[in-house]
Amino acid sequence: MKTDLDAFLEAHRLDALLVFGPARHNPAMTYFTGGAHLTSALLVKPRGGQPVLFYNPMERDEAAKAGLTAYNLAEFPWSRYLQEARGDENLAQAMRLKAALETAGFTRGRLGVTGRVDFGPWHSTVQALQALLPDVELDGRAAHQALLDTRRTKTEDEIARMRHMGHITTEVVGRVADFLTSQRGKDGLLVKSDGQPVTIGEVKGLINRWLAELGAENPEGTIFAQGRDAGVPHSTGRDDEALRLGTMIVFDIFPCEAGGGYFYDFTRTWCLGYAPDEAQALYEDVLTVYRQIMSELTPNGLCRDLQRRTCELFEAQGHPTSCRDAKAQQGYVHSLGHGLGLDVHEAPWFRAHESNTDRLEPGVVVTIEPGLYYPERGLGCRLEDTVWARPNGSFEVLAAFSHDLVLPVKG
Amino acid sequence: MKTDLDAFLEAHRLDALLVFGPARHNPAMTYFTGGAHLTSALLVKPRGGQPVLFYNPMERDEAAKAGLTAYNLAEFPWSRYLQEARGDENLAQAMRLKAALETAGFTRGRLGVTGRVDFGPWHSTVQALQALLPDVELDGRAAHQALLDTRRTKTEDEIARMRHMGHITTEVVGRVADFLTSQRGKDGLLVKSDGQPVTIGEVKGLINRWLAELGAENPEGTIFAQGRDAGVPHSTGRDDEALRLGTMIVFDIFPCEAGGGYFYDFTRTWCLGYAPDEAQALYEDVLTVYRQIMSELTPNGLCRDLQRRTCELFEAQGHPTSCRDAKAQQGYVHSLGHGLGLDVHEAPWFRAHESNTDRLEPGVVVTIEPGLYYPERGLGCRLEDTVWARPNGSFEVLAAFSHDLVLPVKG
Repeated sequence: MKTDLDAFLEAHRLDALLVFGPARHNPAMTYFTGGAHLTSALLVKPRGGQPVLFYNPMERDEAAKAGLTAYNLAEFPWSRYLQEARGDENLAQAMRLKAALETAGFTRGRLGVTGRVDFGPWHSTVQALQALLPDVELDGRAAHQALLDTRRTKTEDEIARMRHMGHITTEVVGRVADFLTSQRGKDGLLVKSDGQPVTIGEVKGLINRWLAELGAENPEGTIFAQGRDAGVPHSTGRDDEALRLGTMIVFDIFPCEAGGGYFYDFTRTWCLGYAPDEAQALYEDVLTVYRQIMSELTPNGLCRDLQRRTCELFEAQGHPTSCRDAKAQQGYVHSLGHGLGLDVHEAPWFRAHESNTDRLEPGVVVTIEPGLYYPERGLGCRLEDTVWARPNGSFEVLAAFSHDLVLPVKG
Repeated sequence: MKTDLDAFLEAHRLDALLVFGPARHNPAMTYFTGGAHLTSALLVKPRGGQPVLFYNPMERDEAAKAGLTAYNLAEFPWSRYLQEARGDENLAQAMRLKAALETAGFTRGRLGVTGRVDFGPWHSTVQALQALLPDVELDGRAAHQALLDTRRTKTEDEIARMRHMGHITTEVVGRVADFLTSQRGKDGLLVKSDGQPVTIGEVKGLINRWLAELGAENPEGTIFAQGRDAGVPHSTGRDDEALRLGTMIVFDIFPCEAGGGYFYDFTRTWCLGYAPDEAQALYEDVLTVYRQIMSELTPNGLCRDLQRRTCELFEAQGHPTSCRDAKAQQGYVHSLGHGLGLDVHEAPWFRAHESNTDRLEPGVVVTIEPGLYYPERGLGCRLEDTVWARPNGSFEVLAAFSHDLVLPVKG
C-alpha cells in the first residue's frame, strides 16, 4: 500500500520516481491523482518526500482534485524551452522534464521513469533527458516494479472500492442470468418472445448498458464465448452467433470504476436449459479444483505452489496441463489467477516457475480462476472469483455469486 | 491513410516498425489489428512488406480476426529465452523481440518502436534490444510520427465509422437536451417531478448509459461544467452540483467505438431556461467566430493560419488570446482544434507557432472549436464540430446539430 512506497523505492534503489501521461487508464498516475481528469501531467515523487504534480494550465481545477502539491506548467512555458532547444521539440520536452525534476528536488541519483503512454515519443524524450542528466541513472523497469510492489497490498479504502465494483459486477451478471432464463428454448436455440434468437452481441450490449448505468466502465470488453470458443481461454465470442441450448458458455467480466479506477474480475460457466454429460463432468472437475484450492489458501503462501497444486489436481483428474507441457492448448492451460487493482492484471503473479516468489501476503487481492479447455470437443469451463487476503489471515470473496452451471430456460 | 505508410516510413528513414502492447486503446496496434481483442501482442511492419502479428497462444482466435500473417508466440517459448538469458526477464523479453523481428525479415537498419504501454518495463526491454542489435538504430519518436502522419488522412471506411460515432454522439446529446427540457425550473434550479434538483452527476450517468446502449465507450469521460467551471476549458464539472438556470454549461462529449476504436468530438454550450445578457453576448461572439472560420476553411490551408485568424477575430471583438499572451487564462486560451481518429487528439495540430506546418489536407478529420472563457465572471462558451476535409475540396460536419444556446424548461 502507498505507505510502503518509500521502502520499495529503496528496495529498487530509486531516489525518485518520474511518472507521466494522463490520469485516467494510467495506473502509475491514477494511484497518486485519484479521480482527477488530467489529459497529460507529470508527477515527481522523491524518496522520502511528497509527490509533486505538474499540470497543464487548462486543467488546474482537475489538478486541484488530486490534493497534491502542484505546479502549473504555464510556469514552465513551452515557448521558452523550444527557443532554448532551437526548435528541437524532443529536446525542449526533456528540458522541461529536467526543470520539473529540479523543482521537486531531484537532481542526482537513480530515477525511475514510467507511465502508460505512447512509447515512441517518450522513449526519445527520455533519451534526451538522459543526455541532459549524464550522472543520473534512469531505470524504467525498477519504477514499474516499485509501483507494482506498492500497489500489491490494498488499504481498506481500496478494498471498499473493489468490493463496490464486485457488487456492480454480480448485479450485472444476475441481470444477464435473469434475461436469459426469461427467454425460451426452441430448436436448440434461445429465442425471444418474437421468435428471434438471442445473440452474443445482444447480450454484450446489455452488459455494457447495465455496467454504465451502475457507474462502471468496460474498457477491456467482455468474454461471452460458447462451445468451441469457450474452449479458447481468451476468445471473446462472436457477436452474430445465436445462443445455443446445452452448450458451455464462458462468461468472464472485468469492468472498472468509471474514469479508469479499480477493476473487478469474475467468471462463470453456464449451460442454457441443460448440461450434456461431458459438460457436466468437465464443470464438476473445475468446481472440485476451485473448492479445493480455495480451502488451501494460506496467508503468505507462495503463489507458484498454488499453481503447481492446481496442475497436480487437474492431472490427477486426467487432464493435460501447462505445467507438464508449456505449449498445451488443451486441459488446464493458464495461470490459476493474478492480482488485480488499478490494472486488471497486476502482482502477485501465479507462474509456476521457480523464479516467481510472489506470495499471498495479507492485503493482496487476487483472482482464483481454474479452468479446463477442449476446443475440439466444443467444451470450455472456468470459474473465477476475486479474493481478498484479509489482514487477519482469512480469505474473502469480495462479491459472492452462485457457481451453478445450468440456467433453466422456458419450455 | 494506410496506403501511405511505406512512404511515411521512408520519409522518417525507418526500415521497419515494431509495435507492442494490447490491441485495444492502443492506436498504433489497433490501426493494424482492427477489432481483435488481444491483451498483448507484437507487430512488425517492414517497409515495403506486409505487417506480421505475434500473438499469445490463448488469443489465437482473436488474432485470426485481424486478418494478418500471424505467428503464435508459443513458437517462441518464454522458458527457452529465460533459460538463455539465465533468468534475466528483461533480456529474455529482448531476445524474443529480436527473434520476432528476424522472423518478420528485419535484421538491420533503422527501426521505429512504439505502442501505448507501461513505459517503464518497455524502456528497459528496448534498451536490452538495442544492446542485442548494436548496429540497429532505434527511434521512438519517428515511429510515432510516421504512424500519425499515416493516420492523419482517413479512408472512406474510416469516415463511415467516424460518421456513425457522430450519429451516436448527437443522438445522446439530443436525449440529454430532451431530458433537461422536460424538467422544470424552480428557485433558480432545474428540478425533477419529485422536486429534487437535477445534478451534473445524474446527467453524466445518463450520458454513459445512453452511449453504452448505442454501442459506444466513453474512456475519457465527459465535460459537463457550469458557471465558473465552464470558464476553465478542461474542468469536467462537479458531480454533486445542481444544475442552475441561466448559467452557461459547456457540454463536451468525446466517445469512441466500443473496444477502443474511432472517436467523435462535439461541444455545445447551453443555458437552461434563459440566457443572461452577458452569456448571450459571449455566445454570439463565439458563434460569429465559429461561422467565420468554417467559411474560411480551404483545402491544404495551414492550420497555424487558422489559429492565428481565430485569435485575430477574437481580438477584434476585444478578447485577450493566447496568441498575444501564452499564459492567458481568460478569453481565447486554447487551439482552434485538432485532428481526431483512433486518438481523440491527433494530427493535424493547430498550434500558431511557425514550426507547425500541418495543413487541412483532403482526407483529414479535425475539430473546429473556438471558445471564450471568463471563469471569474462565471462564463465559458465553446462550440465544437467534427469536420471532414473531403477529397473533392469541400468540408463536411460529420454530424450536424443545432448550435442554440438556450434550452427552454418548464415553468
